[in-house]
Amino acid sequence: MTSVKPSTVQTLSHEEIFAAHEGGKLSINSTRPLKDMRDLSLAYTPGVATVCEAIAADPAVARTHTGVGNTVAVISDGTAVLGLGNIGPQASLPVMEGKAQLFNAFAGLKAVPLVLDIHGVDELVDTIAALAPSFGGINLEDISAPRCFEIERRLIERLDIPVMHDDQHGTAVVLLAALRNATRLLGRELADLRLVVSGAGAAGVASVNMLLDAGVRDIIVLDSRGIIHADRTDLTPVKQELAAKTNPRGVSGGINEAFTGADTFIGLSGGNIGEEALQLMAEEPILFTLANPTPEIDPELSRRYGAVVATGRSDLPNQINNVLAFPGIFHGALAANATAITMEMKLAASRAIAEIAADDLEAGYIVPSPLDPRVAPAVSAAVQAAAQGR
Amino acid sequence: MTSVKPSTVQTLSHEEIFAAHEGGKLSINSTRPLKDMRDLSLAYTPGVATVCEAIAADPAVARTHTGVGNTVAVISDGTAVLGLGNIGPQASLPVMEGKAQLFNAFAGLKAVPLVLDIHGVDELVDTIAALAPSFGGINLEDISAPRCFEIERRLIERLDIPVMHDDQHGTAVVLLAALRNATRLLGRELADLRLVVSGAGAAGVASVNMLLDAGVRDIIVLDSRGIIHADRTDLTPVKQELAAKTNPRGVSGGINEAFTGADTFIGLSGGNIGEEALQLMAEEPILFTLANPTPEIDPELSRRYGAVVATGRSDLPNQINNVLAFPGIFHGALAANATAITMEMKLAASRAIAEIAADDLEAGYIVPSPLDPRVAPAVSAAVQAAAQGR
Repeated sequence: MTSVKPSTVQTLSHEEIFAAHEGGKLSINSTRPLKDMRDLSLAYTPGVATVCEAIAADPAVARTHTGVGNTVAVISDGTAVLGLGNIGPQASLPVMEGKAQLFNAFAGLKAVPLVLDIHGVDELVDTIAALAPSFGGINLEDISAPRCFEIERRLIERLDIPVMHDDQHGTAVVLLAALRNATRLLGRELADLRLVVSGAGAAGVASVNMLLDAGVRDIIVLDSRGIIHADRTDLTPVKQELAAKTNPRGVSGGINEAFTGADTFIGLSGGNIGEEALQLMAEEPILFTLANPTPEIDPELSRRYGAVVATGRSDLPNQINNVLAFPGIFHGALAANATAITMEMKLAASRAIAEIAADDLEAGYIVPSPLDPRVAPAVSAAVQAAAQGR
Repeated sequence: MTSVKPSTVQTLSHEEIFAAHEGGKLSINSTRPLKDMRDLSLAYTPGVATVCEAIAADPAVARTHTGVGNTVAVISDGTAVLGLGNIGPQASLPVMEGKAQLFNAFAGLKAVPLVLDIHGVDELVDTIAALAPSFGGINLEDISAPRCFEIERRLIERLDIPVMHDDQHGTAVVLLAALRNATRLLGRELADLRLVVSGAGAAGVASVNMLLDAGVRDIIVLDSRGIIHADRTDLTPVKQELAAKTNPRGVSGGINEAFTGADTFIGLSGGNIGEEALQLMAEEPILFTLANPTPEIDPELSRRYGAVVATGRSDLPNQINNVLAFPGIFHGALAANATAITMEMKLAASRAIAEIAADDLEAGYIVPSPLDPRVAPAVSAAVQAAAQGR
């Protein structure tokens, strides 16, 4: 079979980019004609009252006879947008529209970009919860850490529809898929890895949790002040939790101490790892340097030291791209009428992504291309099965 | 010329109605292809960052290079839905989807149905204000009185995008257009009318304000307890304002006192006006009985007593239908980059609607058909001109 693989570097002109955004990137249309009084009477008054009353009597009717069954909200407050940081809600809107395009193109879902001009955790939770009856699922996006953890947790508790912060779990799901295939290719086991994660933000925390659930046992997490361990007194509650779950050998120190003997590095932080640290690693390490556009390790160095290398960039092999995960995850969760996206569903999604590349594994192909049309349907099917306990 | 006129009674089956709602009534699609890495790079990362940065530097770029320039939110809390009352947010969603279809079909706008699971005035104002950066305009819908007045007023004060509660102003605009043409047909003047309005809810209050601004001078308003006048001690603040502006002859009492000598009746309340009241009116009255599906005056009685009759029903002549107003009003306001929908803009919309029917006036044709394709463009042009002070 022929797999679609990432293409080479492409230069985008300012003009092309602006042309691709003119008037917004989404259309919203009526799915029924409104040409005569009969059409109007069916879609609007008086006919619509029949459907309203049916939903009032049985809320399940909303799943089948309004858009909620196949519509996802893509919600941000604009505080952690791409590499641009806190640029505010309206400036983040092109990203949310883009995400909505991807939901549509890859999973056939309807997605509504919503940017919110509020930033307190309580206000965000209350506002997003208030919007919930309009949607079948909620994709949180580009909300800064550590607020994103509490916001997602409280919304999951409060709502009976799937809520997922994609910067956390989308990344974790795809990264685990890639790591699974890297170990398969190298004849290693997840349980035997000595793994260093750099970054304890949204993606770092979710990835560590998922890696632990997948069977990785020896993880050291680095933040900007060094190795996270239980004796540190400067840890946020989220990092305290990480300290309790990771670093089983009780290592303290910085980059060099973390890298000594490690066989896997996962960069989710930006920052810069030099050659000295790489020389401290075990032979033939796995190097995932996901910062974008500048990987934590210079690509040339990674190529020299790594047995398998992945990045966040579309112009290098093995791009860890969330689009492999979120369209299928939400499609599956909505199709299963799931009330939440559980760890089992995310693990199933990750396995499904890994399986698609499994038959053609090589060092330059451990994850499918973001454009591979097989991915979203496979992820959706796996997520549905997990949601239904199959 | 041939005008499209309202059709005759039509019966809708339960099956047809449900079929017309299956899966929701809106599609949301990407307007650009996402077929290769270049498409992805333009719509999403890394290209999208260029547009985000441009908006952060100059918010006006959002109007042209995101959807906000042509997207309206249709927002309800489900407290006053059609004749069904407070059926809750999710049961009101089919109405909001229908409204979004109409925005699309009649004005080519994109509209997003949003139903909110909160009901306090403060929460609704804060939540809707938080959503504002996602939209070019906000159409409030089916929010119960008197909360709707304060919610709309505070949002208009707070936001720099058009906000309009359609149940108030859409009705007022179309009703005034019809009244203008009724007086023209009968050779009367707005300033000389003796007018009775039954109902001091959303549509009643807005219609009275607009009629006064259009030059009507003698209006008596009835609520469920009788004529609103300044001596009553049971009036809400909104009704106190009405009392100060209306009833110049200081009439007190009930239906009979209000109808004595009146030449125009506008029913916006439901309820039932009997033949006795009609006999007290001046000769050849104008009778607008807009309650739906049961007009305030039995259609047979209206036909017998009225010189010109209008209703809210699509199966009778002269349907007062908001769809004649809101698509064009929002289209014009967005095209003009207006920061609010002013009384001047609403009066201009009303005149534009009246003008379309003006050449073919007869007792059975004082407003255009809701399907007349000339209406929304004419309303939009008039609203733009008014917004720009032309």
